[in-house]
Amino acid sequence: MGRPSSPKLTRERIVTTALRLIDARGEEAFSIAQIARALGVKSASLYNHISSKYEIVEGIRELVAGSIDASLFASKPWYEAMEQWAFSYRAAFARHPNTIKLLSVIPVSSRDTLRMYDAVFQGMLRDGWPKTHILPAVTAVESFVLGSAIDLVAPPQMIAAEQLVGDSPIFLEIVQSGYVEGSARAERAFRVGLAALISGLRDYLASLTPENGAPG
Amino acid sequence: MGRPSSPKLTRERIVTTALRLIDARGEEAFSIAQIARALGVKSASLYNHISSKYEIVEGIRELVAGSIDASLFASKPWYEAMEQWAFSYRAAFARHPNTIKLLSVIPVSSRDTLRMYDAVFQGMLRDGWPKTHILPAVTAVESFVLGSAIDLVAPPQMIAAEQLVGDSPIFLEIVQSGYVEGSARAERAFRVGLAALISGLRDYLASLTPENGAPG
Repeated sequence: MGRPSSPKLTRERIVTTALRLIDARGEEAFSIAQIARALGVKSASLYNHISSKYEIVEGIRELVAGSIDASLFASKPWYEAMEQWAFSYRAAFARHPNTIKLLSVIPVSSRDTLRMYDAVFQGMLRDGWPKTHILPAVTAVESFVLGSAIDLVAPPQMIAAEQLVGDSPIFLEIVQSGYVEGSARAERAFRVGLAALISGLRDYLASLTPENGAPG
Repeated sequence: MGRPSSPKLTRERIVTTALRLIDARGEEAFSIAQIARALGVKSASLYNHISSKYEIVEGIRELVAGSIDASLFASKPWYEAMEQWAFSYRAAFARHPNTIKLLSVIPVSSRDTLRMYDAVFQGMLRDGWPKTHILPAVTAVESFVLGSAIDLVAPPQMIAAEQLVGDSPIFLEIVQSGYVEGSARAERAFRVGLAALISGLRDYLASLTPENGAPG
């Protein structure tokens, strides 16, 4: 037997290695040098498979965001589709919370992600959203979802135990009455907030109907 | 003249150095060893001024969250106070976006931060929020605010320019019509979302009035 052959270097291996590093050590672990080191190859070798660091980011985006489900926008009212979309969106990023900032600040070019947005936009347009109002509404839901994904990975109890003796008995009671077991705290806040946000957006849309002078 | 005296090591210098490192290099730069190196001292010296890494986190929380303004909860209806609170909260974290995840997942013990929550809770309680519903509502607003703070540091254009040729003319039109100059894109999404979220929470509160069987 000769020495064990190392697995062939591919774009996929580079991207999954980068995601694994970010999951384990945070966004700062994202560098060509660190990915090459983890794969046991020279940095230059990576460039036989990818054209830039940016291409790796888009590969990571495909892996993380690939499970986001916008399919209901084709068949259901936008507010029902958006609820399902938001749940799957939060779940996708809660599995990889260290990617949230990275993917939020690098422009999207992944074809899959653009197709997902296309499905969302088309559904909203069909249901009467004026074109110029769609992007702010979608961005607002995304901001809520990403903040909630971070909250989902926070500890169940966000006030340090030693502070729970408190000089304010009401403060103490509110903090304790609002806490529920494990991730149910974050779950409840997400459900309450998502329902409120979508219901508020429905009212906002109603206020924009053409008879109120909304632009098309 | 002798050698220049180095500034005295204090808790404040340790905390501001830690925040500067996180701002510049991300959450992963947060380690006792790196803070000591930046200050040109041995790690052990830090422990003459702080008891644990956790105390530094709470010092950072005071610096970042110190400008969040919950004062209106004492005098205005909760929904007006919450709007001002959310704006100052987003501004505070938009100045230090690399701290968002760190501060979201480490339990709060900073006295100033607890006093801020106390002001929020007391205002909501006075305006009829049942105790057990306050924490989920506040958490939902915080998730939206923190996601929006990340969006505020994203580039104005979040779809890569080379993708804007698009196979879907409607997609293209929506992306372009929704974009406005500079940070105004994020600003508009934040205003639309915050108004919708607070309006949805007002309706939610109304549905919880005692005559509807809400717990106190």
